[in-house]
Amino acid sequence: MTEQAALDLADTGLDDSLKRLFDLLRIPSISTQPDHAPDCRRAAEWLVRELTDIGFDASTRETPGHPMVVAHAKGPDGAPHVLFYGHYDVQPVDPLNLWVSPPFEPVLVKGPTGEMEITARGAADDKGQVMTFVEACRALRAADGTLPLSVTLLIEGEEESGGANLLPFLEANRDELKADVALICDTGMLGRGMPAITTMLRGMVGEEVTLTCANRDLHSGMYGNAARNPIQLLCDILSDLRDGATGRVTLPGFYDGVPVIPEETRAQWRKIGPSDADSLNPVGLNLPAGEIGYTALEQTWCRPSCEINGISGGYEEKGFKTVLPSKAMAKVSFRLVGDQNPEAIRAAFRAHVEARLPADCTAEFIAHGGSRASLVSPDMPFLPAALKALEDEWQHPAAVIGCGGSIPVVTEVQQALGMDSLLIGFGLEDDRVHSPNEKYDLTCFHKGIRSWIRVLHALAARKSR
Amino acid sequence: MTEQAALDLADTGLDDSLKRLFDLLRIPSISTQPDHAPDCRRAAEWLVRELTDIGFDASTRETPGHPMVVAHAKGPDGAPHVLFYGHYDVQPVDPLNLWVSPPFEPVLVKGPTGEMEITARGAADDKGQVMTFVEACRALRAADGTLPLSVTLLIEGEEESGGANLLPFLEANRDELKADVALICDTGMLGRGMPAITTMLRGMVGEEVTLTCANRDLHSGMYGNAARNPIQLLCDILSDLRDGATGRVTLPGFYDGVPVIPEETRAQWRKIGPSDADSLNPVGLNLPAGEIGYTALEQTWCRPSCEINGISGGYEEKGFKTVLPSKAMAKVSFRLVGDQNPEAIRAAFRAHVEARLPADCTAEFIAHGGSRASLVSPDMPFLPAALKALEDEWQHPAAVIGCGGSIPVVTEVQQALGMDSLLIGFGLEDDRVHSPNEKYDLTCFHKGIRSWIRVLHALAARKSR
Repeated sequence: MTEQAALDLADTGLDDSLKRLFDLLRIPSISTQPDHAPDCRRAAEWLVRELTDIGFDASTRETPGHPMVVAHAKGPDGAPHVLFYGHYDVQPVDPLNLWVSPPFEPVLVKGPTGEMEITARGAADDKGQVMTFVEACRALRAADGTLPLSVTLLIEGEEESGGANLLPFLEANRDELKADVALICDTGMLGRGMPAITTMLRGMVGEEVTLTCANRDLHSGMYGNAARNPIQLLCDILSDLRDGATGRVTLPGFYDGVPVIPEETRAQWRKIGPSDADSLNPVGLNLPAGEIGYTALEQTWCRPSCEINGISGGYEEKGFKTVLPSKAMAKVSFRLVGDQNPEAIRAAFRAHVEARLPADCTAEFIAHGGSRASLVSPDMPFLPAALKALEDEWQHPAAVIGCGGSIPVVTEVQQALGMDSLLIGFGLEDDRVHSPNEKYDLTCFHKGIRSWIRVLHALAARKSR
Repeated sequence: MTEQAALDLADTGLDDSLKRLFDLLRIPSISTQPDHAPDCRRAAEWLVRELTDIGFDASTRETPGHPMVVAHAKGPDGAPHVLFYGHYDVQPVDPLNLWVSPPFEPVLVKGPTGEMEITARGAADDKGQVMTFVEACRALRAADGTLPLSVTLLIEGEEESGGANLLPFLEANRDELKADVALICDTGMLGRGMPAITTMLRGMVGEEVTLTCANRDLHSGMYGNAARNPIQLLCDILSDLRDGATGRVTLPGFYDGVPVIPEETRAQWRKIGPSDADSLNPVGLNLPAGEIGYTALEQTWCRPSCEINGISGGYEEKGFKTVLPSKAMAKVSFRLVGDQNPEAIRAAFRAHVEARLPADCTAEFIAHGGSRASLVSPDMPFLPAALKALEDEWQHPAAVIGCGGSIPVVTEVQQALGMDSLLIGFGLEDDRVHSPNEKYDLTCFHKGIRSWIRVLHALAARKSR
């Protein structure tokens, strides 16, 4: 059985797989920081070499930003064709002083859970996940001399910095990239040892608002009380965004298009999913903060949210300054579900601010991205086979789950290529993605490789559409 | 007539006086920033040299913080003894990019009013004001070889950073510092060319609060809605501090001890004082923001206030980061009038925060100073003579006014030394104190020196108590 041969190779070759992952993790490919542009290119070229080495026809492709990696390997005639998506870029590493080891010097250390952890920026998001797929392909080729189906990889370098060049690239290369299904490896499991496929993703609207009251900073003794304080005004406006009693967002029309969660789904989640305590205790909390009547899991998987991601105004340093500032700023994001319309919600937010603005104050807005939620139909082809393959590997039923984050590629692949996506990933809640000391469990990396071997074989057994 | 000789010297020596002020302004004595501690000491030592040069017995005195400057010069037997108070420390200079010229490179430029302006951090608050008195003493000494009365100067270096060491210093040096009246030069005039003595000062309570929710920064996609957002919580808590409809502070007991403004006083202020438009238009506003039913002038002179002086949390830089932060911070100050009790109000604020804190979140507080409001009796000795001297200099009746700012030294001098204070200053509303491009009109500096010559002669003509 060739699947078993590949699985065995994944086990015996794990040290070498890890060595290659470490090589990739050492490249500081921070896409949002311009001085790391050469590092992004270096990461792309490193992937091209690796993929060429295991028989892919691989190359970098120029974009107005960082290059894409595209690679093809043909499988048996009549076998399905999958498009794998991942990204080689990573988040910034600040605050650097909170890292226990340097972010681009990967180490393997025993973590608090007793698991061995690969610690480095990008270990989980997304280099470790990308390499589970690449190493699975390596083992499959080594076992059989070929892959069980046709595989195209598209690995981008701007996922962490807006990804503005992805959709145009998909549209410009539609014929080359079109496949039967997209496989996206940028999500997590339900919990340690509990595999899952994510079928619900929230969309997002980001807004930045700056209020200006007086035309200069004032002395709060001289003007306090009489001159409008933009921080106070901002607090009032932001506080009004949520109903304190129900936790609901107050923007008119905000809940238009938000689907009701079927009772049987809620019942299933209550059975298999983490409790509120399971979700919140690891980060030091125990009371769900959002909408009354929903569990923490429901709130993040399939209810829309409003979060203040940043606020700034007046004197923020040590000590005290009795300033009455001229300006105050906030960054606000809304996570969207179902058919919520990002542009309608952006307009409602701006109207909410404008309606609360005294006539002698002004507001300026900056739009920071907007995307609809996406939903993979539970009836999509390939889903049952993939779930079964994951269950076989982890010896635990694979769940269909939601994800609070936004992964715009899902909608973009649907829009540009007319393809559905299977979101299969091996991240865990405690991976500290986007934070200091990001890690990826060694078990997730190892069984991630093995999972892909099983999934690709399972998908190969289905006929191409 | 020796007064006239001193006034003439103030005129002919103005360029030299200005040169000395510029020397002092060049020293970046920012008391709240620890790396400027050596500069604070340098400013103190500079003053000791100048005062020694004009015949004072001057020295620096150590405190747990920045040093005090104390100087004595004995006048004729039987003449009154005055204690002059000022401060050599200055506010921070951020945001630096809004300064037209570097804050510690003083320049003399023609301002938008047509007046020549001394522009630098501390030009008005308080180095320029301190130097009006020092230069008046220089002219008086040069004219007569002595001063018309006994003068002690106390110039502190922590007025802008809480001034915690002033009261203990006054108490420890009671015998040395006790005089007949304190002269405090840290206030303003009623308007350009309109001299005034401030008899009503608001007190202040400063508080810094930091809320902590989760034990680390989270990804808002993964936790948004379910994990408490400390910025949202802070906005709710701060927004609740004021009743939006009435502009009143909601802390229980906050208005205990706030005196009713007599109707005749209000009527007089409406006649002599600036209108709301006069107060607010110059800073780009036109709607008074505070308590309904009070003019802007009443709101700042004799109503208590609550202001947010700073706020910070999450991602504040350019761009967007979908972080759900662990912490958020605000700096809040209350201005007090009448018999409001600073410590009771501090406790009420902390109780307000604690009462709104979910059980899984915490608040930490830092106290930033607290002082009661102070009121100089209109019947105090020396007041009529000082008002007359100011009227003679400015050829305009001198007014008795209030001031929205807090000058804790007034209560502390009363408490430690049992002395009343005369608050005589030459600042203007448009001096941009605590803001970028702080300035002091050259006329205020020049006529300020001349005013002190007249005031000291007028006070000398009264018998010591």
